[in-house]
Amino acid sequence: MSSESIAFIGTGVMGRSMASHLMDAGYSVAVYNRTRSKAEELLEKGALWRDSPAAAAEDASVVITIVGYPEDVAETYLGDKGVFSTLPKGGLAIDMTTSKPKLAELLWERGRELGISVMDAPVSGGDLGAREARLSIMVGGDEEAFFRAKPLFEIMGGIVVHQGEAGAGQKTKMCNQIAIAGGMIGLAESLSYAKKAGLRPETVLQSIQSGAAGSWSMTNLVPRAFRDDYAPGFFVKHFLKDLKIALESADELKLDLPGTELAARLYEKLVSLGFEDLGTQALFRNYEELL
Amino acid sequence: MSSESIAFIGTGVMGRSMASHLMDAGYSVAVYNRTRSKAEELLEKGALWRDSPAAAAEDASVVITIVGYPEDVAETYLGDKGVFSTLPKGGLAIDMTTSKPKLAELLWERGRELGISVMDAPVSGGDLGAREARLSIMVGGDEEAFFRAKPLFEIMGGIVVHQGEAGAGQKTKMCNQIAIAGGMIGLAESLSYAKKAGLRPETVLQSIQSGAAGSWSMTNLVPRAFRDDYAPGFFVKHFLKDLKIALESADELKLDLPGTELAARLYEKLVSLGFEDLGTQALFRNYEELL
Repeated sequence: MSSESIAFIGTGVMGRSMASHLMDAGYSVAVYNRTRSKAEELLEKGALWRDSPAAAAEDASVVITIVGYPEDVAETYLGDKGVFSTLPKGGLAIDMTTSKPKLAELLWERGRELGISVMDAPVSGGDLGAREARLSIMVGGDEEAFFRAKPLFEIMGGIVVHQGEAGAGQKTKMCNQIAIAGGMIGLAESLSYAKKAGLRPETVLQSIQSGAAGSWSMTNLVPRAFRDDYAPGFFVKHFLKDLKIALESADELKLDLPGTELAARLYEKLVSLGFEDLGTQALFRNYEELL
Repeated sequence: MSSESIAFIGTGVMGRSMASHLMDAGYSVAVYNRTRSKAEELLEKGALWRDSPAAAAEDASVVITIVGYPEDVAETYLGDKGVFSTLPKGGLAIDMTTSKPKLAELLWERGRELGISVMDAPVSGGDLGAREARLSIMVGGDEEAFFRAKPLFEIMGGIVVHQGEAGAGQKTKMCNQIAIAGGMIGLAESLSYAKKAGLRPETVLQSIQSGAAGSWSMTNLVPRAFRDDYAPGFFVKHFLKDLKIALESADELKLDLPGTELAARLYEKLVSLGFEDLGTQALFRNYEELL
């Protein structure tokens, strides 16, 4: 048994399952979350409550964060009551939020000044992947820190890959989101054309889903849209956040991504129509009207 | 054993395997192809040679065509030595070329005047799918004709779906190509970003291929590009043809498909650079330079 003592910050739908797996594996876990009620399940299971990131970090050897937006990450680490104000030298801080590569690099740099190892390790696999510990964890940071963190990653995820130095985890997650974005456009246009052309989209799917057009999104998201089920597997608003991060990062690299831009514009439109809390399959609803 | 006597027109890489399966099932097959050498394998196997579509059709009950471009389809059916000049009343003509929905409707109409049933039945699955009789066959035309043709389709393919009236097969194939187009853009942008961001694309793939970004194209085409293998599974020039058909058809329906337009523009660029005979994964090569 490792002697790491873990502070887990962010007990939303993802973090809750991830922290729970760490507890099941025998780690002592202290938690902080902006909305305390969302930590209740973990507290009942024996997790210790802390009133701020700083309070959670002060007697921890490892801090894991998975919060909402890059601003929340910045506040959690750099704020007055942030992790960096208390985490002892020799500590390890792992941000698993999908956030900006630049911010990951900045936190790593700040950590180095403080004698703290910082890693970025965003995930994919959704709430189900978190519950079943099958997440893909994309890791950026120093190699030594990666080997220290690996046993923890393997408790929370199924595919754990060290992608490179600080920021590389976030950049890999952006590769994931960019690939999804193009695929979603393709599906939206395909379904839109099918309807306009007088086909039955459900019957079209029978012909195309197991061939070269096949994808995870086609198999998993399109049938939900057919049932008018727009409940979020992944929120429109979060996907838009990710696409904006990707475009900002691409922009810094002087790289044009017109397909990703198109996707961002359409998801922006969905948000402006009030659909931010639907699942990403909302793009398949009235594609023409979004253009 | 059915008494259908088959004329098979177009013995390229797809047609050759398809005709061969029909012969293996016991059907008598006469063949015509613009380049006779491409029919040699079938002739050695016992197929009868005919000198024109008209000559092939005159003693056939079923004509199957799979040629190159819509112009070739029009010539094969409507030309001086075309199928319609000889195919007897009560005959069945099935065009399996990926071609224009409008042309499929026109051929059906012309067939009706002649007492001939006409179907459009394009396929997906590539040369391997044809060889292994695992094609997806997307069928448009009258229901009665569909039931007559079904035993033949089931010899050549694995997934056989009647999608609706004349043209519906072509429209379904367009749905397939449109979905692929978006996915290819997503992959091209994802790989382009990965390279620019200093990641190893091969390592990125390990993290993202089995999750929500996963697709047939990611699994099958991206690794070829990693090996600099641009041999055609599917030709750039043929994919561009299909995208143009899709856009023309969408235009007739007053439907905008900006993602498909972007893909068509980029594949057009590949053709203009002389890459028309590479596989579609050529889009992953130097994406930035195509923009």
